[in-house]
Amino acid sequence: MSGVFITFEGGEGCGKTTQIQRLTGWIKSQNPTLDPLVTREPGGTISAEAIRDLLVKGTADKWLPATEAMLMSASRHEHVEHVLRPELSRGRIVISDRYNDSTRVYQGLVGGVAKAEIEALNAIACGDLVPDLTILLDLDVDVGLARAGSRESDETRFESKGSEFHYKVRQAFLDLAAQYTDRFVVIDASQSPEQVAADIQAAVLPHLSASVLANG
Amino acid sequence: MSGVFITFEGGEGCGKTTQIQRLTGWIKSQNPTLDPLVTREPGGTISAEAIRDLLVKGTADKWLPATEAMLMSASRHEHVEHVLRPELSRGRIVISDRYNDSTRVYQGLVGGVAKAEIEALNAIACGDLVPDLTILLDLDVDVGLARAGSRESDETRFESKGSEFHYKVRQAFLDLAAQYTDRFVVIDASQSPEQVAADIQAAVLPHLSASVLANG
Repeated sequence: MSGVFITFEGGEGCGKTTQIQRLTGWIKSQNPTLDPLVTREPGGTISAEAIRDLLVKGTADKWLPATEAMLMSASRHEHVEHVLRPELSRGRIVISDRYNDSTRVYQGLVGGVAKAEIEALNAIACGDLVPDLTILLDLDVDVGLARAGSRESDETRFESKGSEFHYKVRQAFLDLAAQYTDRFVVIDASQSPEQVAADIQAAVLPHLSASVLANG
Repeated sequence: MSGVFITFEGGEGCGKTTQIQRLTGWIKSQNPTLDPLVTREPGGTISAEAIRDLLVKGTADKWLPATEAMLMSASRHEHVEHVLRPELSRGRIVISDRYNDSTRVYQGLVGGVAKAEIEALNAIACGDLVPDLTILLDLDVDVGLARAGSRESDETRFESKGSEFHYKVRQAFLDLAAQYTDRFVVIDASQSPEQVAADIQAAVLPHLSASVLANG
């Protein structure tokens, strides 16, 4: 039996954290025996969180794009092998705030690291572990940055990049969704939180029905 | 005009640090205007040293082999782009304590990361930057570990791996030297420091004569 691997992607302030909490509550309400694991990248293990600190703090130009891609992939490999694979193989629902699509976008399509290099890193970090479902929360850049800016955090390195950077990020995520149509669902994150949550539930339900609710 | 890129490789306690100091002094004695840059990996830039801390401290099994390879390569990319390339393009002699042969050995041949993955990482980290000369200080493992153990340092993560690990490291370096005969020189590091230094000078001299001493 294998679990369900759901990833959330999107730019700054698109509401991933809030919506992941809502989704987790909804899944439990569908079947109280379900206990989804919520995790995040970069990070998700003690070792990977140490790498996260190098990535999310400090100045925007701290790392060369390829360095950033390798650090992200190093952190991801720990997460994949120590958390994602073991939990999925136990049959658990795993919800990750970002996964390798973020590296395709931030370091690849926007950062300028060649696609072949990004995919080589993804292969080393992840092997064949592909999400069953990727929720892209799509939002106007200025709205997202305003939301992100109101948070209290020292993890501001990516936020601090200019707005041109964030416009490119939004478009790159949409391009990726158009490429991987089998697993991406694009959701309009400018809607009310309730409507966004409902759209996410509609996207997740078929995956639960197929492989998890039947075992509940 | 391009400089001369000399790397030192070898297991723990083989005398790299001492011999790099001696070589630097000898080069200056040959031409007082020469000012070799001595650097090291992992590390060599402030950003790369932050990654070094993750790599050289802590328990031996802290990282998965592929994670370690990606962290090493991330650190190396910063070193290559911010230090090695700029200094070499200025015509400087650059002497590095370890370079990507160490990743081929420690994470690849010994750590078990596939050769194709190691070479993909080396390509991302280094592009086409290959040493002009690689000095391998070859030493009996037990002698080397005894020497390394007498140093005061908290950077003991690699030393703390078992002696079987270090036997494999020694053999893997010798295998690599047999593969890249155009740039590797293997020196018997069990000789007196004076004799080791003399052997190194003999190996370095042709590189100085060809491209640097003539400009002195």
